[in-house]
Amino acid sequence: MSPLSKTRTLRRVLYGCRLPVLASSSNNKFRPFCYSYSVSHKAEPKKMAAERVLPQIFQYVDQNVESYKNLLKEAVAIPSVSSDAKHRDDCVRMVEWMKEKLKEVGASTELRDIGFQTLEGKQVKLPPVLVGALGNDSKKNTICIYGHLDVQPALKSDGWDSEPFELVERDGKLFGRGSTDDKGPVLGWLHAINAYKNVGSELPVNLKFVFECMEESSSQGLDELLLEKLKPEGFFDTVDYVCISDNYWLGTTKPCITYGLRGISYYFLEIECAKMDLHSGVFGGTVYEAMSDLIYLMNTLIDKDGKILITDIYKSVAPLLETEKELYHTIDFDPEAYRKSIDAYKLPHNAVKEQLLMHRWRYPSLSLHGIEGAHFQTGAKTVIPGKVVGKFSIRIVPNQEPEEVEKLVFDYINAKWAERGSPNKMSISAQSGRAWTEDPDHPHYQAAARATKLIYQTDPDMSREGGSIPVTITLQEASGRNVLLLPMGAGDDMAHSQNEKLNVRNYIEGIKLFAAYLYEVGKLPKQ
Amino acid sequence: MSPLSKTRTLRRVLYGCRLPVLASSSNNKFRPFCYSYSVSHKAEPKKMAAERVLPQIFQYVDQNVESYKNLLKEAVAIPSVSSDAKHRDDCVRMVEWMKEKLKEVGASTELRDIGFQTLEGKQVKLPPVLVGALGNDSKKNTICIYGHLDVQPALKSDGWDSEPFELVERDGKLFGRGSTDDKGPVLGWLHAINAYKNVGSELPVNLKFVFECMEESSSQGLDELLLEKLKPEGFFDTVDYVCISDNYWLGTTKPCITYGLRGISYYFLEIECAKMDLHSGVFGGTVYEAMSDLIYLMNTLIDKDGKILITDIYKSVAPLLETEKELYHTIDFDPEAYRKSIDAYKLPHNAVKEQLLMHRWRYPSLSLHGIEGAHFQTGAKTVIPGKVVGKFSIRIVPNQEPEEVEKLVFDYINAKWAERGSPNKMSISAQSGRAWTEDPDHPHYQAAARATKLIYQTDPDMSREGGSIPVTITLQEASGRNVLLLPMGAGDDMAHSQNEKLNVRNYIEGIKLFAAYLYEVGKLPKQ
Repeated sequence: MSPLSKTRTLRRVLYGCRLPVLASSSNNKFRPFCYSYSVSHKAEPKKMAAERVLPQIFQYVDQNVESYKNLLKEAVAIPSVSSDAKHRDDCVRMVEWMKEKLKEVGASTELRDIGFQTLEGKQVKLPPVLVGALGNDSKKNTICIYGHLDVQPALKSDGWDSEPFELVERDGKLFGRGSTDDKGPVLGWLHAINAYKNVGSELPVNLKFVFECMEESSSQGLDELLLEKLKPEGFFDTVDYVCISDNYWLGTTKPCITYGLRGISYYFLEIECAKMDLHSGVFGGTVYEAMSDLIYLMNTLIDKDGKILITDIYKSVAPLLETEKELYHTIDFDPEAYRKSIDAYKLPHNAVKEQLLMHRWRYPSLSLHGIEGAHFQTGAKTVIPGKVVGKFSIRIVPNQEPEEVEKLVFDYINAKWAERGSPNKMSISAQSGRAWTEDPDHPHYQAAARATKLIYQTDPDMSREGGSIPVTITLQEASGRNVLLLPMGAGDDMAHSQNEKLNVRNYIEGIKLFAAYLYEVGKLPKQ
Repeated sequence: MSPLSKTRTLRRVLYGCRLPVLASSSNNKFRPFCYSYSVSHKAEPKKMAAERVLPQIFQYVDQNVESYKNLLKEAVAIPSVSSDAKHRDDCVRMVEWMKEKLKEVGASTELRDIGFQTLEGKQVKLPPVLVGALGNDSKKNTICIYGHLDVQPALKSDGWDSEPFELVERDGKLFGRGSTDDKGPVLGWLHAINAYKNVGSELPVNLKFVFECMEESSSQGLDELLLEKLKPEGFFDTVDYVCISDNYWLGTTKPCITYGLRGISYYFLEIECAKMDLHSGVFGGTVYEAMSDLIYLMNTLIDKDGKILITDIYKSVAPLLETEKELYHTIDFDPEAYRKSIDAYKLPHNAVKEQLLMHRWRYPSLSLHGIEGAHFQTGAKTVIPGKVVGKFSIRIVPNQEPEEVEKLVFDYINAKWAERGSPNKMSISAQSGRAWTEDPDHPHYQAAARATKLIYQTDPDMSREGGSIPVTITLQEASGRNVLLLPMGAGDDMAHSQNEKLNVRNYIEGIKLFAAYLYEVGKLPKQ
């Protein structure tokens, strides 16, 4: 049974509201977000402690900014690009580096072998997953923290202003591949633990860690480890809450907590016309060219306005209810600022805020990413590529299931290919991960909201995200616990893009946020 | 007035025939190709000399195979990729390296500054052109030799079996970028001169050299140098014949001499939707994506069978005459061997030999080369590219003029863009070079045919080529002399492709061919 059945999903959508009117009318568990709350059985002693411990921690964090930057610099310098076989050793090195850091703060650690993958036609060993634990006090809550140590590809020639794998500070921003996605947040947890230790205070919770190095490549091998090994071994038995910091604020000033993600269904569409690339002068006019077939197929996928043309693709998207529409009104999101931040000429959906949010969060989108095997450099290469692989992906949403979406795409491409009638060889394959939503009025979300308000002096938006973190849903299934996404970075961090960055402020306040979050969750009842 | 007016072109097409029946019926200047011919005024002494000099030269060449390979290895090791600004210094180094080599054989040399180009938005200095001269005997013919020292881009990861810039011999083949296009042939001239010198024989001709390093990038700056500087300075005043070795045999066994080339009109189609690349999860569904616009436009250019869809593009193509059709029957070309050599699934035009040859030589073709700015690496990058540049080119033929073709393409793309109605920014630019044909029954061609027969013991095919060497037509204009293309490499050399190679046999016999060609042209009347 899918955890995203229609009933659950729609109910969850309603939870995404912080409006008292909706809360009181639809859900009597709703509480407004504020710091002065009480959970009777152990609130008082912890509140006293907060007054002593957290200010000390915050002061300690402020005194160690340079060392935090230096450690991030070390991590960014390891080009742990998971999609590229020639960086596989760097991925392994990255995991081992992090293992040492966790050991230094007292965690027990283990590198778990997750087997092989087929990459560029070869069997390539997957980087191990770093699994760890810190603390084993049965009276404390246990939080399972997930993060990833791999990064998207990056070359300076893509248009970076500085070397992507060299962390550089400019104007209060730390530029470098992986700074915000996801090395900064992973180190944030390390620094938070370390701060507790250095101010002489016991951690308020037990921690479990799952740090992988394949997230940017569909988390290959991780589901099997979590569901078929760690779960049967009892790794999740003591877990009360799950927390992931691998996303971003919606904008640049207001923090948020995230209770929903789109899934992803990524496609590799391969056409081959010859065993090698050909000179377009010598061969042009006498071959059926793979590129024109590929461009034809890619052009059948989407229209100018972003409407996906794949037959029946919208059929299982959860229908929009009148009550849900209301939820988007209160979210802090300025379409014009958004447009300007990326220098777009015009936004779709008439630049209406609610429509834009819905198309980021609750409707599927299809993007054409590029072509492997064709000419990609500057200048005028006169090549007829022999084999090309078109890359595109669909961000899938409740209630689209990956298997169903893949079948629709395969059927559609096969039909279009038959219409084309080309003699060339076509094949298509996919990697997919489900969409995810969670219950944002769970005490876990309220604890995170209190921690956020303590740091940023404002109630966070309860938001969804357009991106995908395939493991989120697996962790939800494996642990059976509430999963929460607690972003460190800002909405303009440009993960996956040129000049990815993490604001120094978000990094440093993020460390404090994580420390406060651990503190707040420590006060919650055990699950 | 264009040198490719309809009348001239059609006449030339007729000349492309070696059938006595056609020759005698249409052109009384036709002579069958054979070694025993006579040009009365100075044939006898030279013939005597041939019996002494050429065998000595051939022997000398056979004794120096290793040193020829070593010099080619040195040249290939300089990655003189003209399309990439970061290799510009290598281009300059390559030209300087060749200058030293020419000086060593006694030539006077000069590096001519040809100014700047705009590359990747910056002003970049063009590599200088190497201009030289050897011999100044007014009784001898003067041959102007053109070659290029730059190469197409190449990365091992494109699918090369060995490092592209490291010349490696396997199975009698010299693999390396530039081995056949065009460093091998350029060195061939050097070795031929050197052989004359080392056997103690005077060169039978004067030589002039034009070696550029921008051929793979539309020979930028060269036309101006040739027409506006070298010509007014009198560089071409003494030139009697022009020879270029920068193309290939049609197949792998039979030599040919080439009297026609297609031109090229290369397009850069740029679409911008945002100032940077965007994360497809975060932004997907809320931007008008540049990639879908580009794919749409690229898909309007050509159909499955290679028919160009640009309005009126075929209008000025020289019509096919019944007499011309006959010419293709005798050419040595096996469609099935051709298909197998590239592992194509099926050939267009029902794999009919004459149709294939015509579509290589006398009809235009359009190829989609690739996209700059999009994801091109292996793996699953989830990017929405902010700016993409689609690359395509049309091989143009008599009587298509570049200006006319560019206008048709621009008008067509603008019309399709208006139909699209996208808010994104589109621009298109072009670089073009004309098609070229020459008179293959000129004594110059017959001299080259005799030299070829002497080396390969067979009459060469008189062929055209699908590729483009923009300078050919400029040299024809600048010198007012007969221009001839004398290929060194074989039809499977894979210029511009992975694993470009030059057969050791073609390299070594090619050096002998060049020496014999110089000898034969030495016997021709002065122009």
